Amino acid sequence: MKKSILFICISFLMYACTEGNNASDATESPQIQAEKQPFAIAIHGGAGTIYKENISDSMELAYKTVLEQSVRKGYKILEDGGTSLDAVEACIRILEDSPLFNAGKGAVFTSNGTNELDASIMEGKTKNAGGVAGVTTVKNPITLARAVMEQSEHVMLAREGAEDFAKHVGVTLVDPEHFYTESRMKALERAQQRENSLETSFYDPYAKEDKFGTVGCVALDKEGNIAAGTSTGGMNNKRWGRIGDSPIIGAGTYANNNTCAISATGWGEYFIRGVIAYDIAAMMEYSNLSLHSAAQRVIHKKLPEMGGDGGIIGIDQKGNIAMVFNTPGMFRASIDTTGTLSIKLYGEDQ
Amino acid sequence: MKKSILFICISFLMYACTEGNNASDATESPQIQAEKQPFAIAIHGGAGTIYKENISDSMELAYKTVLEQSVRKGYKILEDGGTSLDAVEACIRILEDSPLFNAGKGAVFTSNGTNELDASIMEGKTKNAGGVAGVTTVKNPITLARAVMEQSEHVMLAREGAEDFAKHVGVTLVDPEHFYTESRMKALERAQQRENSLETSFYDPYAKEDKFGTVGCVALDKEGNIAAGTSTGGMNNKRWGRIGDSPIIGAGTYANNNTCAISATGWGEYFIRGVIAYDIAAMMEYSNLSLHSAAQRVIHKKLPEMGGDGGIIGIDQKGNIAMVFNTPGMFRASIDTTGTLSIKLYGEDQ
Repeated sequence: MKKSILFICISFLMYACTEGNNASDATESPQIQAEKQPFAIAIHGGAGTIYKENISDSMELAYKTVLEQSVRKGYKILEDGGTSLDAVEACIRILEDSPLFNAGKGAVFTSNGTNELDASIMEGKTKNAGGVAGVTTVKNPITLARAVMEQSEHVMLAREGAEDFAKHVGVTLVDPEHFYTESRMKALERAQQRENSLETSFYDPYAKEDKFGTVGCVALDKEGNIAAGTSTGGMNNKRWGRIGDSPIIGAGTYANNNTCAISATGWGEYFIRGVIAYDIAAMMEYSNLSLHSAAQRVIHKKLPEMGGDGGIIGIDQKGNIAMVFNTPGMFRASIDTTGTLSIKLYGEDQ
Repeated sequence: MKKSILFICISFLMYACTEGNNASDATESPQIQAEKQPFAIAIHGGAGTIYKENISDSMELAYKTVLEQSVRKGYKILEDGGTSLDAVEACIRILEDSPLFNAGKGAVFTSNGTNELDASIMEGKTKNAGGVAGVTTVKNPITLARAVMEQSEHVMLAREGAEDFAKHVGVTLVDPEHFYTESRMKALERAQQRENSLETSFYDPYAKEDKFGTVGCVALDKEGNIAAGTSTGGMNNKRWGRIGDSPIIGAGTYANNNTCAISATGWGEYFIRGVIAYDIAAMMEYSNLSLHSAAQRVIHKKLPEMGGDGGIIGIDQKGNIAMVFNTPGMFRASIDTTGTLSIKLYGEDQ
């Protein structure tokens, strides 16, 4: 962080020296110049069948409170000159530590009654990335994903091996009991009761609903670098070591300064097959679409054509934010380049 | 298979009836018409520092023999009206059963002296896909990947969970001893000796070389459907449950009838970060490039710009085949739409 601030200061001192003779705004201090660099942040807490009539006022307040706390934390880091990577990790840690979202503390249960957590992170400047799948004792999987990126030569680690790596690098571990929440256990019991009834199938709307809920963050920092991260407990009642899109670079998470940073949430199998996060970036790079147009086309056309649903949040190097979903709602919040805070849960104003 | 043949016959009988009055070639039998549908296949056995001077004549013959056996098996399936998916699976099974390639029987060892196998498969017609990561007792991981695609609602399963699924669907299991080969054990010992020496690092050319070796297949069948599959033992001396690109849809494997089918081989971390397999398809879709041009641009420009190396094989719906790599060699073979067999190991005629 110190190095970043130093770099900005030196850059703008040099700029002021070389441009000072002819620039009309040469009277501005380096600090004011630096403040003109746009920065912005967006988070999500999962897409799904989120209708106002299904959420009590107190629950709505609870969701909004954590979303605001998370997005403000990330924004403060960016405001203070921190990196987009720092902001992404910090925002997601707050969402992981809340029992409200299907990630970290609030993760859903597998069919065996365990919690298996997935996460990934990517920085747009270097296209470095890290991901972990199926960890059971890591308090903040997003922090482990970042450690994989920064402290291993690998991109993706799984299960026991990832936990050994977590011990190796000193990431905080917890007893698996940490991830027990009564509401998620009831969701598992409901799913298993439905499963045992002959009238339902994997594809029934209730079972499908249990697939959703993931958290993510995208950010642009004052140095013009973007980053993205995603964390999840995966699918309620999941079996067979299922890996969804969240820990997979290109599917659930992607970042490249030249195009965009994306974090996805939804029915993971379709996001993997559609390579959804990268597809938005590819459309921007090869078809010259804006972030918003590319996200609209992928989420409202290509994804439903395959039969998939969910949403994404995205940001580009100018600080444009996209929050696009084809489900009734998506928990989401952002603070844009003008400093305007937005917190939304339902289908309005995409 | 029977259904496919029946479908082709009915289709061409209908074609002959409706077009019979005015088509100039209406005198051709449905069978001759069917034979005009292009079909083709390509396989690889890994990219890397493969120079003629490093491979004895007898080893060269051994590699070429298995490559020919594999590609001829797949071609025969296509010739007989089988699906591209059947051909891809059959070709890869032969390569997996050979001790020569780093997949199945010939898989490299992890740092713990175990063998952890990854594979994935995707069909271009439906964009359905399946992948498995870190299985230790599955004789042919490509067959398990196909079972994940066809018999589960998931795309990717890992480790013990994937093995439970293998038992559930009746895929052939073997004792982990099956994957012991002396040459791979020696490679592990060499890697660990190097690792213990202060003079070398993960990035030394010998250690890097051990990363390579993967098998894959792409095919176009007479119904115009393409498919791709990839299988690997991963990286020699790998740790921490490392997952490479091979089991990841978009990175190591991708197929879409509208663009191409791709199987990749190389330094997996770069293939994940570059979303290499899908990037070729995206360039075709959004920039209207040919398969060969897109593959050239990704493998010779984008991948080395990141610092990565390796190669791909690809096929499109017309039967055009691309075999592109930025390493000195790649074990590869193909039978094109004219029925011409090609088997190559070194850097000639890409």
